[in-house]
Order: sequence, then structure tokens, then C-alpha cells
Amino acid sequence: MDIQTYMHGIGKAARAASRLVAKADTNAKNRALHAMAEAIERDVEKLLAANRKDMEAARAKGLDAALLDRLGLNAKTVAAMAEGLRQIAALPDPVGEVTGLNYRPSGIQVGRMRVPLGVVAIIYESRPNVTADAAGLCLKSGNAAILRGGSEAILSNQAVAACVHEGLRAAGLPESAVQVLETTDRAAVGELITMRDYVDVIVPRGGKGLIERIMNEARIPIIKHLHGVCHVYIDDKADLDKAIRIADNAKTQRYGTCNTMETLLVAEAIAPRVLPQLAKIYLDKGVELRGCDKSRALVPQMLAATEEDWYTEYLAPILSVRVVKDLDQAIDHIATYGSQHTDAIVTEDYSRARRFLAEVDSSSVMVNASTRFADGFEYGLGAEIGISTDKIHARGPVGLEGLTSQKWVVLGEGQIRQ
Amino acid sequence: MDIQTYMHGIGKAARAASRLVAKADTNAKNRALHAMAEAIERDVEKLLAANRKDMEAARAKGLDAALLDRLGLNAKTVAAMAEGLRQIAALPDPVGEVTGLNYRPSGIQVGRMRVPLGVVAIIYESRPNVTADAAGLCLKSGNAAILRGGSEAILSNQAVAACVHEGLRAAGLPESAVQVLETTDRAAVGELITMRDYVDVIVPRGGKGLIERIMNEARIPIIKHLHGVCHVYIDDKADLDKAIRIADNAKTQRYGTCNTMETLLVAEAIAPRVLPQLAKIYLDKGVELRGCDKSRALVPQMLAATEEDWYTEYLAPILSVRVVKDLDQAIDHIATYGSQHTDAIVTEDYSRARRFLAEVDSSSVMVNASTRFADGFEYGLGAEIGISTDKIHARGPVGLEGLTSQKWVVLGEGQIRQ
Repeated sequence: MDIQTYMHGIGKAARAASRLVAKADTNAKNRALHAMAEAIERDVEKLLAANRKDMEAARAKGLDAALLDRLGLNAKTVAAMAEGLRQIAALPDPVGEVTGLNYRPSGIQVGRMRVPLGVVAIIYESRPNVTADAAGLCLKSGNAAILRGGSEAILSNQAVAACVHEGLRAAGLPESAVQVLETTDRAAVGELITMRDYVDVIVPRGGKGLIERIMNEARIPIIKHLHGVCHVYIDDKADLDKAIRIADNAKTQRYGTCNTMETLLVAEAIAPRVLPQLAKIYLDKGVELRGCDKSRALVPQMLAATEEDWYTEYLAPILSVRVVKDLDQAIDHIATYGSQHTDAIVTEDYSRARRFLAEVDSSSVMVNASTRFADGFEYGLGAEIGISTDKIHARGPVGLEGLTSQKWVVLGEGQIRQ
Repeated sequence: MDIQTYMHGIGKAARAASRLVAKADTNAKNRALHAMAEAIERDVEKLLAANRKDMEAARAKGLDAALLDRLGLNAKTVAAMAEGLRQIAALPDPVGEVTGLNYRPSGIQVGRMRVPLGVVAIIYESRPNVTADAAGLCLKSGNAAILRGGSEAILSNQAVAACVHEGLRAAGLPESAVQVLETTDRAAVGELITMRDYVDVIVPRGGKGLIERIMNEARIPIIKHLHGVCHVYIDDKADLDKAIRIADNAKTQRYGTCNTMETLLVAEAIAPRVLPQLAKIYLDKGVELRGCDKSRALVPQMLAATEEDWYTEYLAPILSVRVVKDLDQAIDHIATYGSQHTDAIVTEDYSRARRFLAEVDSSSVMVNASTRFADGFEYGLGAEIGISTDKIHARGPVGLEGLTSQKWVVLGEGQIRQ
């Protein structure tokens, strides 16, 4: 069978299943989620065995350490997968919620009903836990899912898929509500992102290359996560303790996450008091510092930052540092070099906090809190299907609500338009 | 200057202006809207003179009557343009609204703030009033706008643009917040829909050809209105009077609008009582009827409908009619042939009404009301920038809210992630 025929078959089955899961009741969806979790816990050894084979093949191919790290499963991460599905079951069902049902002068009542998007295609790399998370989130939000994991994770993903299908069967839901592609052919992605009749939205999770390809070739709306060049701005009206605590945590709590600070901005007037102290903390933790001239005058161990550094998402123990004149220059810097992901100000000044919140155009803007909080669990959404750096449809962490839409409902008693 | 250089200049200016209008306060935006309305009222003769030239050129080119009808302005439509701007001024400012600011277990407060999308590009044909409506809606929602009207309306659009710019100046806002392209070169659209750095969303308003071209070539999210194949389903538990009133109004109140019914579905059990009566009304009003075999058995004057008819948006006094077995078959018909725009059921049966609302996947679903109500004014949104048949971001009538997005705001007291 050629790849186009294969993919259109997948698409057709997904569309048919989407009609059934859209009207599945909350109990059936939750039963399926619990049954998936149980199957995963029961099959932990099978999952780990499949994952070991993927890992061996990946090592033999010479894939890099970061990828191997994301690919690897262990008893703890498998347990977390099952727990994640149970947490999704515990979240309120978003489907069917009607809001704002108000009477209009014509006598009709108009409101909005939350509804599934239809068929969601998720394209991701390495992490096999995405298979379980995405399946759970799509099901609970009433969508059918087509999952396309990386070729390096194919056996792990199929082992997870078997548990997902068992859960769907246990609740009387169609297995084709969650389809994991069995091909690793790159052409499958090309079909997936152009099958307008069968796919309603694409969620790509992966490196810049994957996202760029999808942005250029897709003919279907995308909820994308481009990259996170996150900033903390320490204002000269900042509380010094909070500033140091937040700037330390935002960089060093985890280096490889998208909400990690990549550039520290410090107001000129406070820089002499805060930068040397912070630099010591970073250097002790092995963080390489790259600064502007004014920063380097205060911290001689800093390397010189290039223009390129301000644009860079390091995902590593490297931090760029710039001394700015004031809030205006900080906002300008973020507008010029940032990626509209997550940015924070540390200040005790009411008006500056208010301006930062209003004027910084990022998916999350924060006052006196670490950028590391930009996360579906921390925001109370439960699991997230990704963090959107788009403005359309969904910004920031995307949970169940981001996988739904709202249609208008009109209730009348025979009204006609005059 | 080549077209790419010209368009990038427009884009850059729009991006810069978008930062200023995003933070413009409500008063400044409303002052600009009122000043635009005054300028339009004062310049009514100038606008009509420009429009006459466009009309003469259009007639000389042999453009069709429907297009000429949409292109023409008169004293009444000009007054409506000014009134539309004043109505937008009267709507609440959506920008900056914070909702759901709740404490999380970590101690941070998390909520969402409504923010402009940035730069909105609107591509439209004929109607010069879109220039005023779009300018007003984009400004009030804090967005910069790039407007690309049809070449046939260029003088009318520029006359409106002069009034829009006067209003912006009067309120101290940058004129480049609303730019009306002065070129009629088709290549300008090609640039506009691929300038990712300068444009955040495209709203195409026009025929299928225009929309298809934009869907295929755009590299920027689109809020699109594809077409409206709207249905009324008369259930066998319908109140006969309501059924006739609604089916009449949905078809004949206006023929050329997207929310006009194009296909009437009638339950088999009620068809003998309702179809002959309705057919008489339609035929008296000059509506051509195209029916299935069962319909034709009841109404001999009907022509035979082809498979193609069920897919067709006539925008004309033509109606296709089908007798269906029951609600299930009606829902299936709508899922197969509909365009997910607006569909209504007429019934007194509670459970069937509830099923129709839940299961019909259209931007507006109605019980016992005419499909003609699917409209921004009728829904209470004020003016609309279009009616979206998409599921992502906005469905149905798109007003100020559809031109905004929500970012996350986090307020802390020095919290860090554990």
C-alpha cells in the first residue's frame, strides 16, 4: 500500500471515530482513561522491554545523549504516565459546557457551547510519554488523535498504544479514536499535514527543524511551540532577596526546559548590588556567563556576548546578561530579541509592574515569580499538550480547553428575522 | 519601488503602529472612532463622487450586477458606515480584561489577560463599507490593520481611508495603524499573506476563489469564511406554524446572505402536512424548488435535485428539499453535505432538540429560530469582521473578541519553582 493510501485510511478512520468520541459521555471517557492507566501499570515490564530495544537501536545509530535521555523510560516514568492519565480523568469534562446564554432583543437566547476540534494530529520526537499524555488529553476533550512519534521511539510508542487501545475497548469506544502511525516514512508527515478533510489541527512538538518544516508545508492550522527565549528583568525598585532567588531559580532549577531564563536583564542603578552576588551563584553552579560591556565591568569572569546570544535559546548552563537603562529599555529588548514565551519582572513598583504586564507581548508575563512556573500543572490545567507561542487560538500552556472550540447555540420559540 | 519592498515597508510600519495602538487607552481609541464618523459624515459628497468613478469604471469593464450592487454607495450606506463606527466606540474595550485570577498551591496567582493579536490583514472585494468596519474593529481591539480591497473599489476605499486617517490623527494615534494598500497589483496579496514577521492573522472576505488561493498560499493563520450551506430540519414533532414561519424566513428574507437556508430537510411523517403548504409560499415568491423523489411526489412542481445540489450554496431564490426518515438521517445529511456554518431544527421534542444542539458540528446550531439570526449584531457582538467557518480560534460571527487573544499573567511575591 502506498503511503498516501495508508494515510487517507488513517484519516478516514479518525474522522469517523471523532464523531463517536465527540458524543461519548464523561463516564465512558473516564472509564477508558482509568483502564489505560491500569494496562500501563500491568504492562510495565513489556513497556520497558520495548523501550530497551529502542534505546539499543538509538545507541547503535549514535544518537546524542540529550535524545537518549528523552527516549529512556524507567519504572518511575511509566508510573507517571499512568498517574497522568488518572489526573486527566479527574479533570472536569470541557465538552458541552454552555456559557453566556443570554436573551437578545429579538427574543432568541444566544450562548456558546464548548465542543471538540475534531481530529488532532500530534507530531513529536523521542519522549514515549507524549503518546499517553496526548491520547488522554485528546480523548477527554472529545477529539480523535493521530499520533506520529519519532522513528527512534517506535517500539515504545507501540507498546503504549496497545495499552491505550485496551482502555478504549474496555469503555466501548473505537480503537481508531487514537491511532499511532506504524510507519516511520517521512512522507507520512507530508500527507498528515495536508489532509484537510481529515485533520483539524496539528500540534508539532520537537526541534526547530521539525516546526519550520511543518509551518512551511502544512495546509491545516497549527498550534505550535517555536522556542523559549525567556527573560527576567531585575528592576532598580526590586527587592534584592526576591531578585536573587528568582533569577537563580529561573536559570538553574532545570537547564533544558523552554521556560528556563536565557537572558537576564538588570537595571543600571541596581546592577552593582545584584550582579556580582548573582554571578557568584551561577559560576559556582557551573553556568557560563556571556555579558554586555557594562555587565563585564562588574563581573570580570563573564565572556563577551554577541548579538547572536540575545536571540539564543541555550537549553544549557549558559546565560546571557545585559545591563539596561530602565524598564523601557528592558521592554524594548524583550520585544526585539524575545520569543514571546515567558518573561518576568522583579520589582516592588506598582506602576512598573502594571506596565510590564500590559506591554510585554508574551504568552506568560510574570511579576515577582520564576519563569519556571509557566507550565500546565502549575497553572492548574492538568497535563498540557504543549506550550503555544502562537497568538491565535491558544497561548501558553495548552490543556483540555485548548483542544476545544466554542460553537454558538441559539434557542428560540419560533422567532424569525425582521 | 518593487512590490516586495513596498509591502515590507507597509508591514514594518504596521508592526510599529501595532505596539502603539495596543497600549492606547480606551478614550483615545473612542475619540478616533468618533472623529472618523464625523469625517465620513462631513465628506459624504466626496465619498459618493469617488464611488461614482469606481462604478463608472466597473460598468465600463462589464462587471456583473451583483458586484455593482455591492460596490455602490449612497447617502444611506455612508451614514450607516459612520453609525457603525459609533457603535464600535460604544462597545466595551476588550483589551486588558483579566479573568480567572486565582491562587495556586504554590502561592502564585494565575489569570488571563485579553490582548490584541497584533497586525490583522483583511483582504476583501467590492464593499467599501468593509474599509470603515474593519478599521474600526481592529482599532478598538488594539490591532493595527492592513486593508486590501478590490481594485474595482480603489477610489472609494481611499476616500474612506482619508476619513479614517483624519480620525486617527485627531486622537494622536499613528495613521499607519490603518493602512489601505494603494496598489491593485495581485502580487501584493502574495506578499501580504506570507509576511510572517509583520502579519499575525489574515481575514479573507470574498468568493471561494479568493479564499482557496489564500488557503493554499498563506504562511500565516487565517480566520476564514468558506461558505454557508445552511439547513433547516423540520422534525415530525415540530409545531407546524413555527416550522412554516421559520422555513419561509430562513430562505426568503434575503437570498444572497451566507446564513440563508439552502437545503430544507423534512421528516417523513410530517412531510405531507408541511411540504405542500411551504411549497406554495416558495413558489408564490418565485423560489425554484429542487427536491428528492419523495418531495416531488408531494410537490409535483419541484425539479429533480442532483447530488451536486446538496452541496450548493445558491445565494439565490433556489432551494433544495429532501424528505428524511428521522433526526439521525437529518444529522447525517448535514454532516455529509453541510458547510458547518448554521443549521436549525424545528421541534417541540426536548431530547431531539438537545441531540441536535450537541451533535451538529456547525458554528451556529439553533432550535426553533431562523438561520438568518447568525449575525454579529443579532448575537450582540456589534459589528463583525466576518463569520468564521473555522474551528480554531473563532467560530461563527467574529467581533472584537475574535480579534484578540489571551495571555497568562502570573503575580507572585518571590515564589520559585521547587
